[in-house]
Amino acid sequence: MTELAFDPHDPVALTQALIRCPSVTPAEGGALHLLAEVLRQAGFETHLVTFSDEGTPDVANLYARIGAADRPALMFAGHTDVVPPGDEGRWSQGPFSGAIVDGELFGRGAVDMKGGVAASVAASLRHLAAHPDDPIAFLITGDEEGPAINGTVKLLDWAVAKGDRIGHCILGEPTNPAQLGDMVKIGRRGSLSGTLVVHGKQGHVAYPHLANNPVPQMVRLLAALTEGELDRGTAHFDASNLEIISIDTGNKAFNVIPAEIRATFNIRFNDLWNRASLEEHIRSRLDAAAGNLVSYSLAFERSASEAFLTEPGPFVDAIVRSIEAETGRRPALSTSGGTSDARFIKDVCPVVEFGLVGKTMHQVDERVAIIELESLARIYQRLLEQYFS
Amino acid sequence: MTELAFDPHDPVALTQALIRCPSVTPAEGGALHLLAEVLRQAGFETHLVTFSDEGTPDVANLYARIGAADRPALMFAGHTDVVPPGDEGRWSQGPFSGAIVDGELFGRGAVDMKGGVAASVAASLRHLAAHPDDPIAFLITGDEEGPAINGTVKLLDWAVAKGDRIGHCILGEPTNPAQLGDMVKIGRRGSLSGTLVVHGKQGHVAYPHLANNPVPQMVRLLAALTEGELDRGTAHFDASNLEIISIDTGNKAFNVIPAEIRATFNIRFNDLWNRASLEEHIRSRLDAAAGNLVSYSLAFERSASEAFLTEPGPFVDAIVRSIEAETGRRPALSTSGGTSDARFIKDVCPVVEFGLVGKTMHQVDERVAIIELESLARIYQRLLEQYFS
Ligand SMILES: [Zn+2]
Ligand SMILES: [Zn+2]
Repeated sequence: MTELAFDPHDPVALTQALIRCPSVTPAEGGALHLLAEVLRQAGFETHLVTFSDEGTPDVANLYARIGAADRPALMFAGHTDVVPPGDEGRWSQGPFSGAIVDGELFGRGAVDMKGGVAASVAASLRHLAAHPDDPIAFLITGDEEGPAINGTVKLLDWAVAKGDRIGHCILGEPTNPAQLGDMVKIGRRGSLSGTLVVHGKQGHVAYPHLANNPVPQMVRLLAALTEGELDRGTAHFDASNLEIISIDTGNKAFNVIPAEIRATFNIRFNDLWNRASLEEHIRSRLDAAAGNLVSYSLAFERSASEAFLTEPGPFVDAIVRSIEAETGRRPALSTSGGTSDARFIKDVCPVVEFGLVGKTMHQVDERVAIIELESLARIYQRLLEQYFS
Repeated sequence: MTELAFDPHDPVALTQALIRCPSVTPAEGGALHLLAEVLRQAGFETHLVTFSDEGTPDVANLYARIGAADRPALMFAGHTDVVPPGDEGRWSQGPFSGAIVDGELFGRGAVDMKGGVAASVAASLRHLAAHPDDPIAFLITGDEEGPAINGTVKLLDWAVAKGDRIGHCILGEPTNPAQLGDMVKIGRRGSLSGTLVVHGKQGHVAYPHLANNPVPQMVRLLAALTEGELDRGTAHFDASNLEIISIDTGNKAFNVIPAEIRATFNIRFNDLWNRASLEEHIRSRLDAAAGNLVSYSLAFERSASEAFLTEPGPFVDAIVRSIEAETGRRPALSTSGGTSDARFIKDVCPVVEFGLVGKTMHQVDERVAIIELESLARIYQRLLEQYFS
């Protein structure tokens, strides 16, 4: 048994150790092996699983479980991979140093989300000291910041196929905009992207009657796509929103009317829609604007995700109470922001997201106040207490 | 004195000889030297002048004059350079063969416009036999199909600086859509191109309130640019027309709202407008649509050309009568089509365009009926008779 150089009950020491593993996606960097060793020594059954897929790098993942097999586990989900540090010269501390300066721990992944993972491990180890039979699981991927193909999706399938019982999941992404306790995420909007091509007929600008310029037709279709709202939001969701992301013709000649033009768009949508209803709505808007005059083709990306909501109830209440008890703040229940791996987990069990403060994530000098790491570990520990009582 | 292998009074033989010179822009290919020799032997003072400019190839040009120096000359303008033949395997005759099959002379430049040049030379030589003092000039460039920087513009300046008197000009571009005698061009629309950039603020699609998407703003500006007509045309001109040529964002990421987007447009405009009034009109349309909400920048290309008209009158009448007498057709007086070197010549003297039938220009198997070459030479000869009587 490897002797650990730090106490894993201390979320600060564990975060530091993880930051020192240079695990920029898809590199494992030693981070998952370190976690596996910590959990193994604490009695967890641990599995390091590497997934492969065509066109993407192999990625390592960690699944671990402890406690009674016949009771559903509370699962902590997260990732140890990090985005690149960017210009290292602009960091005041090395991005993989884990240096602590004035009560703040610096490093890539400090808040997104090695700190969150460390807090959940520390909390679990503390809880297990008094309640060794309580079933706790960890689903930690190395492919969250990358293509997300060889990560959470496959590891969940693997765990479900293995027959493990999972009751609820807490995903420790940095959910708080400004202060610990600001915000819990109980769902996410869906995301759907599409590409629209309008087909015309190329020609010389001096003879427009011999050509068919697709550009003004595209302008008309895009006006139809963007005018008016998709909805006004729902109890737990903001209004759905469509953004045109790009329009491209690639025509360099000032005297040539182009043959076609393409545009791409992305829709973030709430629980009033699903992928199918939204695709139908977009097509009918375009058809109405196109009439018989405009020839267009429309393709939706396969990588769409559906909106989902974990309805407020006992599990969400347990999290909210844990946060309030520790921070004195009552967190907002939000579904804002981009997508996360919760979009995969929600197919297996109810999932709620709560972690550190996201302000410095993906930035130079990403850092976390060590007091917040301690607080988050205590919040998770309170949640474990409530969940299993 | 080089002995010519053909009779230059014969437009068919001269066209053949010119087609056999491979003068794809910017190559001279022997075409201008051949013409200079023909004109020199006929008594013309000839000047082969090569012009240079940064970033463009050197190009040879020919200026020639004969007759009384104190009387204004009738000038024939044209070009001997040709566009590339494209896939030579698709030609039924070699593109530089000058082969005659079933009464048609094949080759690149047959109608655009070695045939027109040859007809004007043949007509002049025939006319001079009886009227040796009549002043006739030739302004023949090797840079019409190229950037047009080292061609007609500079050769005109050179001739004007030399002190030559030029009364009127006939440019022998292929003006007839279907049959010889269809159409004379008495002017051309102007051309103005511009680039419009809308500035927004980059951001993540999930947080549109933190970004400012320039794409829908561009859609709004372009709708304002294209809605409604610029005018309904004038006595001699079609309606002015604006075409959006390209819209480009260059954003590959479906989750990023782009920082800016650009569009280019080209306007072909009639004599109701000039460059300044049109630029002002475009700016005011954009300002009205932009309000205070849209930040845009607009730049117009320097290479704009103004619309011009050679008013119907004695010179146009002389051309029309010559065409009617030869073909029995009364030509339309048109200002349609793209730009031509007439846009430069009109600053020096009245210019009218009339030449062969344009159907096969710039195509595989470009060709001219030899009967039309003969007819065009006789039309030009009739014009010389009338002009100097
Ligand atoms: Zn993350
Ligand atoms: Zn031409």
